Amino acid sequence: MEVEALVFDVFGTCVDWRGSIIREAARWSRQHARNIDGAGLADAWRAGYDPAMEEIRSGRRGFTPLDTLHRENLNRIAPNFGLSGLDEATLANINRVWHRLDPWPDTVPGLRRLRAKFLLAPLSNGGVALLTRMAKRAGLPWDLILSGELFEGYKPESKVYLGAARLLDLPSSKVMMVAAHNGDLAAASKLGLRTAFVHRPTEYGPAQTTDLAPSQKWDYAVDSMEALADTLAC
Amino acid sequence: MEVEALVFDVFGTCVDWRGSIIREAARWSRQHARNIDGAGLADAWRAGYDPAMEEIRSGRRGFTPLDTLHRENLNRIAPNFGLSGLDEATLANINRVWHRLDPWPDTVPGLRRLRAKFLLAPLSNGGVALLTRMAKRAGLPWDLILSGELFEGYKPESKVYLGAARLLDLPSSKVMMVAAHNGDLAAASKLGLRTAFVHRPTEYGPAQTTDLAPSQKWDYAVDSMEALADTLAC
Repeated sequence: MEVEALVFDVFGTCVDWRGSIIREAARWSRQHARNIDGAGLADAWRAGYDPAMEEIRSGRRGFTPLDTLHRENLNRIAPNFGLSGLDEATLANINRVWHRLDPWPDTVPGLRRLRAKFLLAPLSNGGVALLTRMAKRAGLPWDLILSGELFEGYKPESKVYLGAARLLDLPSSKVMMVAAHNGDLAAASKLGLRTAFVHRPTEYGPAQTTDLAPSQKWDYAVDSMEALADTLAC
Repeated sequence: MEVEALVFDVFGTCVDWRGSIIREAARWSRQHARNIDGAGLADAWRAGYDPAMEEIRSGRRGFTPLDTLHRENLNRIAPNFGLSGLDEATLANINRVWHRLDPWPDTVPGLRRLRAKFLLAPLSNGGVALLTRMAKRAGLPWDLILSGELFEGYKPESKVYLGAARLLDLPSSKVMMVAAHNGDLAAASKLGLRTAFVHRPTEYGPAQTTDLAPSQKWDYAVDSMEALADTLAC
């Protein structure tokens, strides 16, 4: 085992974006006397995520921070989810729910164990400020924050994975990508990174149809961050 | 007090580079049966630091990581300090002493207190990998690693301070530069950052002549990181 650094997908792999938004939406419903469908809001918001990044990956749009993309998508779907007519400060705070996502129960205990042996960083399409504030709130024990923002790109663009290895001053073979998404691991693997699949079968809710199993033979496949720590003898 | 993030100079402000090199040099002397003048080596090595960066700041040379600059300077001074004829792995390890610098005694306890109230990051001319490994070894509790490397620049270039505020998604007025060097604070202050001077009168040894006192009225001037935590009510 020559791996020195573990880099983690965050949305879905480390944190439960869907459950977190559902929980906050219940609060927004009470605060603003609305009847917000939290699950519907979370799913619709997330559905706009990849298409918004694809505009940038394709070169049709210059690099734009994820907070801005999230806000554009929120503005678009707000009328469908009882969020019309809220003031700017309220909408800005709702948009920052992506900074306040809760980790899966195994994430913090698993990362704490892994941190004793490896350098740990997110490698996310979330921005540096988002990832930093999320980690501070949730207690994610990162050694450093790595984000597509640092390379003005969005996974699965190669420059994000290669940029992370370069900043860590490691060959890609000493960096392992940890993700619940086969596409993320496929892109990392092609560039020489090691790979660990984390099974998150309810990231998209009880009816999830994607990423229910490894699509290739990754270096590791586990059910939790604690299982990853077990596997890597941490 | 509207500051949300504290960014720290590292070499001299958080860690004692001179004492650390002297301590390691004593070990190298024993290991390689040499008689290395550790203080002389530390001072000569550090004397090459700013001139090497100035080649890049001036545009005469493209951005080059600090590890490379340190190694070039080591190669130049090695014959004067009993370091000739060592093999490549040994020299590479000696060069990485800059990744293994020890904190001043007040640094870790002070940062731990400050971290409860503020986002904390280094903002150093050391590279991301250097700062990450130093923090892991020394227990520096950063929330994220910020480095001139992320902006392909070296302090006091404006792009380093402005880039840090941008990645933090904060106006510069909500970021405070903490440094033992008046020049660093002067550059930060001109760009709207808040400033805290930390008195490190023996950074350059007992005969230090520079930065013995604040050169301007900075927002704060303290004798240690614990005093900074006291002052900021952490």
